[in-house]
Amino acid sequence: MKAISSDKIILGIDPGTNLMGYGVLQVEVGKPKVVSLGVIDLRKHTNHYLKLGHLLERVEGLLQSYLPDELAIEAPFYGKNIQSMLKLGRAQGVAMAAALARDIPITEYAPLKVKMAITGNGSASKEQVADMLKRILRIDQIETPFLDATDALAVAYCHYQESNRPQFAKTYSSWRDFINKNPDKVKSI
Amino acid sequence: MKAISSDKIILGIDPGTNLMGYGVLQVEVGKPKVVSLGVIDLRKHTNHYLKLGHLLERVEGLLQSYLPDELAIEAPFYGKNIQSMLKLGRAQGVAMAAALARDIPITEYAPLKVKMAITGNGSASKEQVADMLKRILRIDQIETPFLDATDALAVAYCHYQESNRPQFAKTYSSWRDFINKNPDKVKSI
Repeated sequence: MKAISSDKIILGIDPGTNLMGYGVLQVEVGKPKVVSLGVIDLRKHTNHYLKLGHLLERVEGLLQSYLPDELAIEAPFYGKNIQSMLKLGRAQGVAMAAALARDIPITEYAPLKVKMAITGNGSASKEQVADMLKRILRIDQIETPFLDATDALAVAYCHYQESNRPQFAKTYSSWRDFINKNPDKVKSI
Repeated sequence: MKAISSDKIILGIDPGTNLMGYGVLQVEVGKPKVVSLGVIDLRKHTNHYLKLGHLLERVEGLLQSYLPDELAIEAPFYGKNIQSMLKLGRAQGVAMAAALARDIPITEYAPLKVKMAITGNGSASKEQVADMLKRILRIDQIETPFLDATDALAVAYCHYQESNRPQFAKTYSSWRDFINKNPDKVKSI
């Protein structure tokens, strides 16, 4: 099997303070394959810091287990209220810190963008997203408790699609940016 | 110098996505002493993840340098808008992750509570808080660029006061809690 430049492992997460879904997608020879899919239940912890601590541990566990090259996060930009946005921001911040500590690049996608990428419909239901993912990624069955995980798998798949676009890979903001992204093309004279 | 049980190092931080103030307070023989005071400027980073990554690095640096026993965070529970609350939550989450990874207990204080603790006035200005801290902690001079740091020092001092209250140290929610907090009082038979 010939390794091509787009080979990579993408961890998709949908962080929240109650449930965090995750999905691991391995891209081999340009084709995505589901490696793992799950939901981390944080509801059992009543203490806010225990929730965040547990979230950190689990995200670090995922990073250690699957060694993803890239992290894709489903990030809503709205919320019920200021309080829920602060809590969501903290959960996102904790998950991001785990990736930042390992220099794993982070990309965020709004839920509408993810749904559009998978189903072509920005207001698709969780079930519609899961159904489409089953077909695209040839997963036999996604059980109901994993419906929260499919959102995370969806964001990983959305990132796979986006990073496969030619313009995504070939966009450089400056010469410095080009050099930073292509260290192998730089010769010392 | 006799070490007493309340001896500890408190790191106070006031995390934000543009500026993060910090203050390190060493409590020795029950008396607080300022060890460090500073502001981390994150404005130079235009990329949101670079800001968070830099914030994480700097908080980890503070934890490694001063080995604080406890973290006190100034945490506003309101904000201009949903977007700014999400960003603030992320900055708080990143700072908290660094502490959680080291099992450092976190306590949050609302700005009003901090101002009350220092000046007796919940609507005191930054300058009033700084002035009072100078007197209480016998700091000769706090230069203007450090006014953002005094907020962080104030939250560390507020935490020192709170944890010195008899009821704070002596509150147990259950026998299990008492045992957990007093492992030296447990005898195996």
